[in-house]
Amino acid sequence: MANTKGLISFGGGMPDPQTFPLEELKEIINDIFDKYFSNAFQYGVTSGILPLREEISGLVKRTENIDCEPDEINVTSGSQQALYAVGKVLAEPNQTVITELPTYVGAISAYDANMINMHGVEMDDEGIRTDLLQETLDQYKGEGRKARFIYVIPNFHNPAGYTLSHERRKHLIDLSVDYDVPIIEDNPYGELRYYGNKIPSLKSMDPDERVIYMGTFSKVMTPGLRIGYVIGKKDVIRRVNLLKQALDLSTNTLSEYIAYEYLKRDVMKTQIPKNIAIYRKKRDRMLDALSQNFPENSKWSKPDGGMFVWATLSEDIDTGMMKERAVKNGVAYISGMSFYPNMEKKNGMRINFSYPTLEEIDEGIRRLSLTIEQETSLNKQTILKKKY
Amino acid sequence: MANTKGLISFGGGMPDPQTFPLEELKEIINDIFDKYFSNAFQYGVTSGILPLREEISGLVKRTENIDCEPDEINVTSGSQQALYAVGKVLAEPNQTVITELPTYVGAISAYDANMINMHGVEMDDEGIRTDLLQETLDQYKGEGRKARFIYVIPNFHNPAGYTLSHERRKHLIDLSVDYDVPIIEDNPYGELRYYGNKIPSLKSMDPDERVIYMGTFSKVMTPGLRIGYVIGKKDVIRRVNLLKQALDLSTNTLSEYIAYEYLKRDVMKTQIPKNIAIYRKKRDRMLDALSQNFPENSKWSKPDGGMFVWATLSEDIDTGMMKERAVKNGVAYISGMSFYPNMEKKNGMRINFSYPTLEEIDEGIRRLSLTIEQETSLNKQTILKKKY
Repeated sequence: MANTKGLISFGGGMPDPQTFPLEELKEIINDIFDKYFSNAFQYGVTSGILPLREEISGLVKRTENIDCEPDEINVTSGSQQALYAVGKVLAEPNQTVITELPTYVGAISAYDANMINMHGVEMDDEGIRTDLLQETLDQYKGEGRKARFIYVIPNFHNPAGYTLSHERRKHLIDLSVDYDVPIIEDNPYGELRYYGNKIPSLKSMDPDERVIYMGTFSKVMTPGLRIGYVIGKKDVIRRVNLLKQALDLSTNTLSEYIAYEYLKRDVMKTQIPKNIAIYRKKRDRMLDALSQNFPENSKWSKPDGGMFVWATLSEDIDTGMMKERAVKNGVAYISGMSFYPNMEKKNGMRINFSYPTLEEIDEGIRRLSLTIEQETSLNKQTILKKKY
Repeated sequence: MANTKGLISFGGGMPDPQTFPLEELKEIINDIFDKYFSNAFQYGVTSGILPLREEISGLVKRTENIDCEPDEINVTSGSQQALYAVGKVLAEPNQTVITELPTYVGAISAYDANMINMHGVEMDDEGIRTDLLQETLDQYKGEGRKARFIYVIPNFHNPAGYTLSHERRKHLIDLSVDYDVPIIEDNPYGELRYYGNKIPSLKSMDPDERVIYMGTFSKVMTPGLRIGYVIGKKDVIRRVNLLKQALDLSTNTLSEYIAYEYLKRDVMKTQIPKNIAIYRKKRDRMLDALSQNFPENSKWSKPDGGMFVWATLSEDIDTGMMKERAVKNGVAYISGMSFYPNMEKKNGMRINFSYPTLEEIDEGIRRLSLTIEQETSLNKQTILKKKY
């Protein structure tokens, strides 16, 4: 980077390395060499080692009140693999799935890779607009076709920061039953709640196995170990497993043993409160900095957890075009259109607060505000020029 | 397993855990905690960490005389991911690729998952019959269509055990140029040569970037760490990289650092001769046991390296049907039809010699021979019954 100030990035979605339980990981790995010897370095099983699946079954019961057997779980190479595999298993090319608008960029790339069409339904600060969703499902029904599934991130949405309200969750489950459409519930940030009370998971409210639940160790242990999981009815899990044989045979065995020991020793119990303390401070600092610096005609989400704030600027600003100027000013973000399957929304941006330091948050938001100011003033000049 | 003798499996394709460099791995991992701290646990980059790609570039130059830059390399989650990704990038659904007959079961599952058609070309003990391959390519040309690529495992073929001769390699490269068809060269076992001299890699003979080369650390380090790589021209690597973002974002970062340190410290230099010593003994023992026990009307490959022997039994034996009896007798193998895209070959079997102990090889081949004898005698009775 030519910038002498050093680039401050709000662009990534990385956890703060401070939150990595390195001492515990070191101890766990040394024990693995003694206890599991060569097994931890040999080929694994495609569904994931059984002791890990047993621990995951216990974990999701404790944290999300989900009842499942180990053979209803597939361990995946990060939850990105779960997104790809479940998408490919449930939808054929040219079939349509429903996502939130905006939605996770990794879901867009997974579905795009298999030529699956996405239909987006707008969100507000209570999550996906289930009234609009119902209209869409009705319309599809009238046309004699079906959405293959509804993909949602109910907690601390990436990129939007919103959390799906309890009322909306009930409505979503009802719609899933009434229109017989599966739901994919992607919950990477569930444990990272900084304010408010936990809301029941969709999977725990699911009367007849229509919800497929995805989780990950990336935000509660470390992302580099690439351990995710998917929970669903046996038939779906069996098909995901078959596809996974073709995708990468099996997940990293050493990582599976690490995740197993991590759960067995309940490292999360001490780790999560630490992570929450670090991230809550950053989230608060980010919201303060936005209030103090961002222009009055902009707005942003106030997430109760997770890693992202979603900001919406004045409509004349194209955040994709503005990126170059931002980087010149020493700050980076992801422009909103990356999170729209048809790239139609121009004035949104995703701002990450988990990775930068508190000082970087202050300075980065100052730089970003300056960038918006410059862009706005340039737009005004252009409009004036056009007038004359 | 109900069997009191304990099942001896020639079915898997697993390395002998004796060959795992556990002490070196332990040391490397402890150093990683000190030297790379949080980087080794953070999200990686989709193409693979640069220092590892630099080391791989040096490795393939030393071992296979391949010239490549780090940006012509993609690190993958095992070479299974490379098979899947390159297949999907180069071939659309319903297009046709050419494989050897038999071919690797993982390639069949990767291509099947994307509805890619496979046309098999018979092998003999010098590898793929390039004369038959030429006929096929000619026929395709006459029909105005093209095979998307030719997939081969030139060294110590899985499952066939054969090695592609130097003459045939030259012919294969000529055909690739003349008919403008890319070659996928899959070389998981190249370093595990027990007899004879190394034959130049196809990639090193490639005049104009038509060969895509795949390697893996599974057979020279450990398979559980799931590190493979693919080398090809920049355009293909760029597309593989884009697909990998959708498949799993990035390979396991800790494993990448382990592989990097493994190469940098040149652990392979001391490790490979040890592995060769262990496997050569097993290979010899397996061939001896086959000579002493297998029926006269059967034949088998005599591999110069790798992990597998391919046996062909009398034509009246269906090795798929025989499996149940074999397991009852305490021995397992993979029936040949798993390695045929159309499952048409009934009397072949793949026998692995890398995983079982020397004693298990003796006893397992004895049990397998007994099983074949029983099956043959049963077949004769059936034929007799039919006569009367």
